[in-house]
Amino acid sequence: MPLIEIHLRRGTGAEFRRAVSRALHQAMVDVLAIPEDDQFHVFHEVAPGNLVIQPVAFGRPRGERVLFIRLSFNVRDAGVKAELFRAIVGNLRDVAGVPEDDVLLTVVETAAENWWASGRTVDPATGYDARMTAGSTGSAGS
Amino acid sequence: MPLIEIHLRRGTGAEFRRAVSRALHQAMVDVLAIPEDDQFHVFHEVAPGNLVIQPVAFGRPRGERVLFIRLSFNVRDAGVKAELFRAIVGNLRDVAGVPEDDVLLTVVETAAENWWASGRTVDPATGYDARMTAGSTGSAGS
Amino acid sequence: MPLIEIHLRRGTGAEFRRAVSRALHQAMVDVLAIPEDDQFHVFHEVAPGNLVIQPVAFGRPRGERVLFIRLSFNVRDAGVKAELFRAIVGNLRDVAGVPEDDVLLTVVETAAENWWASGRTVDPATGYDARMTAGSTGSAGS
Repeated sequence: MPLIEIHLRRGTGAEFRRAVSRALHQAMVDVLAIPEDDQFHVFHEVAPGNLVIQPVAFGRPRGERVLFIRLSFNVRDAGVKAELFRAIVGNLRDVAGVPEDDVLLTVVETAAENWWASGRTVDPATGYDARMTAGSTGSAGS
Repeated sequence: MPLIEIHLRRGTGAEFRRAVSRALHQAMVDVLAIPEDDQFHVFHEVAPGNLVIQPVAFGRPRGERVLFIRLSFNVRDAGVKAELFRAIVGNLRDVAGVPEDDVLLTVVETAAENWWASGRTVDPATGYDARMTAGSTGSAGS
Repeated sequence: MPLIEIHLRRGTGAEFRRAVSRALHQAMVDVLAIPEDDQFHVFHEVAPGNLVIQPVAFGRPRGERVLFIRLSFNVRDAGVKAELFRAIVGNLRDVAGVPEDDVLLTVVETAAENWWASGRTVDPATGYDARMTAGSTGSAGS
């Protein structure tokens, strides 16, 4: 039951935002093995000037076209998070046409029990969604 | 000094949002024993399409009427968080008329020292608001 | 690569928000020793009524003029965070004219590997930006 927030400038099209959402969700399903219905995204569209970034950061040109993306889910191994970042950056490029210099990612991890939704069935042994299989994704769940 | 963010669609009324806020705060006071003045809520009203959710999630119908609610406070026991979730869902139904299928909750916990406001007096032994009593609420504070 | 979010009422001027951003960034550079280009801020301007706070909290008068500021970065010592809070409150007063009663701060800490941006070079020993020096700032990085 991860929550993803996308902070971006006002003025993009609805189709672009839908493509961003699809790109993110596919990476989450592929890498974290979350269920297909486990998609909870919020887009925060902000006015000009409300995304503050230096014109060059880490040696690359930046601007208000960037997407600040915060993903929140249960604890995962560092390797799994690195794989997720690669998948997101690749999908955003392929599905939504976002160059990698416009992608900024951060993850906030929480304890397994820090989520609630009606109808959600949790594996008592892991605290994660009972439909998830503990696969090759490190600490599964959320 | 918890922070609560409510992400919801544009178009609800101010009275509805006030009722949501009261429902959340009462649950925080009742279950976490926070002081009455310790209420810090932000409503993020987003445009149509900017809350992305599957039409059915965890076997229940969903839609853009959902409230994504993120609560941030100091570490609590899992049992206390479960009790808080029950209180919030009940209060949102009773006070604001929100059906439980429209409620999505997540908690981000922080270290006790991760808060600042003028005038706040912290118990040096716990790092929490000095007015709080360590009651039946697990790790008190925040 | 910290992320800072500022939640505030609608109706402030762009110059005020730029001053707030400068005040925050200078404190981050001075206390956490982050690189100058490591500035990622988002302003969330919300409608009247959408910042909910009691008229008096912790014995001080409050109102919708408050700034709820959330900082997210890697783990730091408690003393470093306290120093950062002092620097932010001082800078906001001196640079942006914000009285201390209007400042509310919280920090969300994450693992060092929880960040991604193109071009960012990470010290494999620490997981932090390779340009940072481990100075007097407690656990450096992010």
